[in-house]
Amino acid sequence: MQEDFEAPSPTRRELLRMIGITAGGSAMYQAMSSLGLAAESPYLGPVDLQSAPKGASVLILGAGLAGMCAAYELRNAGYRVQILEFNGRAGGRNWTVRGGDRITELGGLTQECRFDKDLYLNPGPWRIPYHHRAMLHYCKRLGVPLEPFVQVNYNAYLHSSRAFGGKPQRYREIKADYQGHVAELLSKATRQSALDASVSKEDQEKLYESLREWGALDKSNAYVANRAGSDRRGFQKEPGGGLNGRPIASVPIGLTDMLDSKLWSGISAGDRFDMQPTLFQPVGGMGRIGEAFGRELGPLIRYNAKVTEIRQDDRNVNVTYEDMSKPGTSLQARADWCLCTIPLPILAQIPMNVGPTMAAAISAVPYVSSVKVGLQFKRRFWEEDDHIYGGVSYTDLPITVISYPSTGFHGAGKGVLLGAYIFGINAMDFTAMTPDERVRKALEYGSQIHPQYHGEFDNGVAVAWHRAPFSMGCFGLWTEDARAKHYDDLCAVDERIALAGEHASFIGGWQEGAVTSALDAVARLHRRAVAQGERA
Amino acid sequence: MQEDFEAPSPTRRELLRMIGITAGGSAMYQAMSSLGLAAESPYLGPVDLQSAPKGASVLILGAGLAGMCAAYELRNAGYRVQILEFNGRAGGRNWTVRGGDRITELGGLTQECRFDKDLYLNPGPWRIPYHHRAMLHYCKRLGVPLEPFVQVNYNAYLHSSRAFGGKPQRYREIKADYQGHVAELLSKATRQSALDASVSKEDQEKLYESLREWGALDKSNAYVANRAGSDRRGFQKEPGGGLNGRPIASVPIGLTDMLDSKLWSGISAGDRFDMQPTLFQPVGGMGRIGEAFGRELGPLIRYNAKVTEIRQDDRNVNVTYEDMSKPGTSLQARADWCLCTIPLPILAQIPMNVGPTMAAAISAVPYVSSVKVGLQFKRRFWEEDDHIYGGVSYTDLPITVISYPSTGFHGAGKGVLLGAYIFGINAMDFTAMTPDERVRKALEYGSQIHPQYHGEFDNGVAVAWHRAPFSMGCFGLWTEDARAKHYDDLCAVDERIALAGEHASFIGGWQEGAVTSALDAVARLHRRAVAQGERA
Repeated sequence: MQEDFEAPSPTRRELLRMIGITAGGSAMYQAMSSLGLAAESPYLGPVDLQSAPKGASVLILGAGLAGMCAAYELRNAGYRVQILEFNGRAGGRNWTVRGGDRITELGGLTQECRFDKDLYLNPGPWRIPYHHRAMLHYCKRLGVPLEPFVQVNYNAYLHSSRAFGGKPQRYREIKADYQGHVAELLSKATRQSALDASVSKEDQEKLYESLREWGALDKSNAYVANRAGSDRRGFQKEPGGGLNGRPIASVPIGLTDMLDSKLWSGISAGDRFDMQPTLFQPVGGMGRIGEAFGRELGPLIRYNAKVTEIRQDDRNVNVTYEDMSKPGTSLQARADWCLCTIPLPILAQIPMNVGPTMAAAISAVPYVSSVKVGLQFKRRFWEEDDHIYGGVSYTDLPITVISYPSTGFHGAGKGVLLGAYIFGINAMDFTAMTPDERVRKALEYGSQIHPQYHGEFDNGVAVAWHRAPFSMGCFGLWTEDARAKHYDDLCAVDERIALAGEHASFIGGWQEGAVTSALDAVARLHRRAVAQGERA
Repeated sequence: MQEDFEAPSPTRRELLRMIGITAGGSAMYQAMSSLGLAAESPYLGPVDLQSAPKGASVLILGAGLAGMCAAYELRNAGYRVQILEFNGRAGGRNWTVRGGDRITELGGLTQECRFDKDLYLNPGPWRIPYHHRAMLHYCKRLGVPLEPFVQVNYNAYLHSSRAFGGKPQRYREIKADYQGHVAELLSKATRQSALDASVSKEDQEKLYESLREWGALDKSNAYVANRAGSDRRGFQKEPGGGLNGRPIASVPIGLTDMLDSKLWSGISAGDRFDMQPTLFQPVGGMGRIGEAFGRELGPLIRYNAKVTEIRQDDRNVNVTYEDMSKPGTSLQARADWCLCTIPLPILAQIPMNVGPTMAAAISAVPYVSSVKVGLQFKRRFWEEDDHIYGGVSYTDLPITVISYPSTGFHGAGKGVLLGAYIFGINAMDFTAMTPDERVRKALEYGSQIHPQYHGEFDNGVAVAWHRAPFSMGCFGLWTEDARAKHYDDLCAVDERIALAGEHASFIGGWQEGAVTSALDAVARLHRRAVAQGERA
């Protein structure tokens, strides 16, 4: 297993926090936002391990991106490598669900996906920022083609069930109007000498001028219904050709309504470092990366292997596992070193003789509960009716988002939306339901934004991460306190065992965290192996 | 010929104006920005002409998008249609230049493009906004696949030769810092009661809270070097995995330096209605649309036909043209009605018996001079070295932009950049040079932003619109005054002749203007034809 997974976006977190769904959720998001999410990898290029000590071996637990990236580099350096993987497929949380796939939860509850050919849901990570350079490197190296992922769509919706009578607003309207009001108010303050104490008169003049352009203000720096504002927020009647082409300006939302709605908290989505364009997705689904790694490593991966015990002594690491296709079996794997990428909620339950500091660290990181719902519809009504091509709508409802496909535009057949990305208590509520009920609930919420849901729904799947037998959670949630106490202990090599995965990184919940943590751990394991080889 | 072409972006215009390249350019851009550019089409769905009067015929001049869209709809309604086209290809300014293509200017100067397979330059329009619904409709109807065009890239550059020692800044840095300073200053003003006269105390509290999140401010609403700011502008050291993963915050640009640089004028690029995501490009080049229309209309288009005279009487329109493959020939075409999409600088020189109001209108609209330069490099260094995938860098140099391909990411072979999009006086300066000199000049400017230009350049082409024999300009430039005096006269049907093209629209320079003007003109011609049929 592995640990790369994408966090709910900071912007979504902010939206949730500001719109305020649940106290539990809110506290969680607040804690997360001050911590290790949402930033760039310090990856500086392909790792160079030089050559392995003669005959040295590494056993890797988990064929997610962390484990497979480590296996790939260690193998290339000359190590003997084996991976034990719980699932019958490579990738871990790097995973794309397609028609015919079966999804089994803890306890045995199973769904079969019935999506049409070429349609899919990424239950885990779904986008790659331009600065996740390790991820981009491996996509290039493995020949996984990338295409743009549309995150910010000015025609997508911001929706609050408590504002504007529940009517969704277009992103462009909220963004233009918030910016316009801010620019107008700061212009006024400048003219009233309110900034004299902190800003020179010369700078105030430059600021005043800049605000007019930046905020789409009129000549007297007021934000009003005119051509300039409509050239941001959209028109009442759009300009066109011929005698019918004269445009009519639209009317901005007033400051009080804007502030009351709290929808402004949704406009900084694409400003966050991990959500800024350009973002990518692999052509055909995020799972293409795990699949490519799996093909590359071939027989090095032993599938359906459930680790039951991890023991190290002064010569080896011995791992006991069960071949899940033959229940009750007990098999052994042995190597000089072990890289363990098993998610912490599962690892905490596996007997393992590491020191007390690593053991304490393993127990210190709770995992986030989460449910993603994929919905197939009979037609791409979001394009045909709403003129939304890719991007994300945000809502204060428990579904938090509706995300539209960034590919297959204008397709005549069916289409699949990400219909919900649910966290915390709401996610628990969803897993109290059967999968069919979860899908129906997501439809009920989403139809407040897209009434077409009622007539166009075809089928759906609902993947619950806290019910996934191979991860038991969406990703690790570090508090600032836990990070200070336990992070270095989690990452430090314990004799012959090192840990890796998104939980062992400062970019939690992102695949880049998993991969860079694996490269960091592998480099340190390698130095130990070389030092021991020299001593031997 | 036809009239659809994309305007220089308002944001680019703003950048140019604020950074202030040339007085001529500046005046032009200022005039443009208050006029018919940059907005949505009033297109509401496929046109329904019902059936044509028995035997009715329409002669269309120009096989650009306006002319071909009109031909397509008129043919489908049962009209007998013929198009006369100057070029040997369909599309007009909808045009993609690929390896092997020849580009001939007024006077005979010819370039041959030497790009590698699958690489191209769109000399004319290069993007389609999500709200250009007529364009999207015809792409869908003609089966032209679309992919996202990346306009806003937070890792692209904003460059002023007069600021920061000429060192280009990342878009994300300028955007985060401008927004952060604005938020901090307005927060201070709020706390100093400067807004008391215009904003209620309750709203001021909500505003203060919103500014903290929107501007990435600290707890006391200050914009400082910390995690929140770096989560927008990027880090000094990015967070990563393992023991080496701890991030270091970056330091914002101070307010005075920010205002002096004027680079803030480049951050609203993606906020403008015609530049907001989602934008599209046809897979394989913008020219795919014109090519598809050309295939659809087949023998209805007569190529290499240079119109020399247009005459109407009370029964017909007679057009005289030269078959350019047989110089000196004089051929005739006749129809009941004529839709003329010839660009105005050329049309103004063709004898045509229309009334004085249309004639005056034809002479009232000057065309913009412009040069686009495509540069092929030996590798995609902007991706490999600068981590820029798609999007646009802006500069105060005459090249105004460098635009990176939105497709073929990670390609191992060569790559083509849009290396310059030059306007006004600067464009005139460029056409005083040979094409090779233009390319060298674009390289010289661009190397200030990408020093790799020196070692990686392969070949290039420089297309000058004011030297194009089929348009003699980039697009029509309406002043507010000219629009008030002449626009309705330009669009009104004159007996049996109607005009169409981007010049006959409020979205000048965009393909959507051309297409919607054609649909509007065709609907009015059709009503006349039906009325006449009933009288007859």
